[in-house]
Amino acid sequence: MKPEATIPLAPIGIIHTPYSQLEEMPIQPGGAKESIGTIEFLSQYATGLRDLEGFSHIYLLYHFHQAQRTELIVTPFMDTIPRGVFATRSPLRPNHIGLSIVELITIDKNRIKVRGVDIVDKTPLLDIKPYIKNFDTITDSRSGWMTANAEEVAAKRSDGRFVG
Amino acid sequence: MKPEATIPLAPIGIIHTPYSQLEEMPIQPGGAKESIGTIEFLSQYATGLRDLEGFSHIYLLYHFHQAQRTELIVTPFMDTIPRGVFATRSPLRPNHIGLSIVELITIDKNRIKVRGVDIVDKTPLLDIKPYIKNFDTITDSRSGWMTANAEEVAAKRSDGRFVG
Repeated sequence: MKPEATIPLAPIGIIHTPYSQLEEMPIQPGGAKESIGTIEFLSQYATGLRDLEGFSHIYLLYHFHQAQRTELIVTPFMDTIPRGVFATRSPLRPNHIGLSIVELITIDKNRIKVRGVDIVDKTPLLDIKPYIKNFDTITDSRSGWMTANAEEVAAKRSDGRFVG
Repeated sequence: MKPEATIPLAPIGIIHTPYSQLEEMPIQPGGAKESIGTIEFLSQYATGLRDLEGFSHIYLLYHFHQAQRTELIVTPFMDTIPRGVFATRSPLRPNHIGLSIVELITIDKNRIKVRGVDIVDKTPLLDIKPYIKNFDTITDSRSGWMTANAEEVAAKRSDGRFVG
């Protein structure tokens, strides 16, 4: 296998949230249902937001910019057992890409307001995608070790374990 | 806004699929329900796959390596009207990151077999994440311009419009 060389990505915007540090931040949008965030796109990308207003939810792809290292085995917030990093949403994965689904509230030129952010303030945005019911809602999924119910997830907060 | 400089990503593996070219490839996993793909991770990442076997579905994040340009307005495969690129799944987005949900079949060391690939052969893999029901299943979403039903999506094939 010969994977191609480095792929250089550039942030397309910044995610502003109420969480200035990782400690005490909700984990996953399920734990941050009412947290409002603002996504500020570079002004040259405003045109690309046309037609987005019809979607109720969007994916945010972003750079876990506070994660400076990679670990292949991590203990997730929702568990006490070390797990393979690809079986978790930990920031300590190779490439440090984060993925969250948030609710779209309003769009104003190059700024969009969203609800349900579980993301630290000033996180660099890499991409957004519309959540499309036909493609993205899996009705019969199994979630492995992640057996916590929605209430447990909502009550859980992050700590410093994945920083640096 | 001062977004940070370039973020260099490196592929963590290669996605092998039955589709050697974009033309005639199904669009979205919904149109490729029975297509089997093999994901070959760089061998040093095999450890990170521990515990993944309990999940029925995973996200693949990959590099649209055949997309060489960005367009802010595109006409999606499932539509006849030009749309803002961020309201579509088009490869011509800034950063050229693709996202698909596939069904996990088997894991063997650094190789995992998946069902439902809508991805061109030899695509560089950037990340995988477990599909977690509590976080990822949105029961009350609206999908904007994307009003096609599952059967229409399944019948649709791609063409060359997003190459190069």
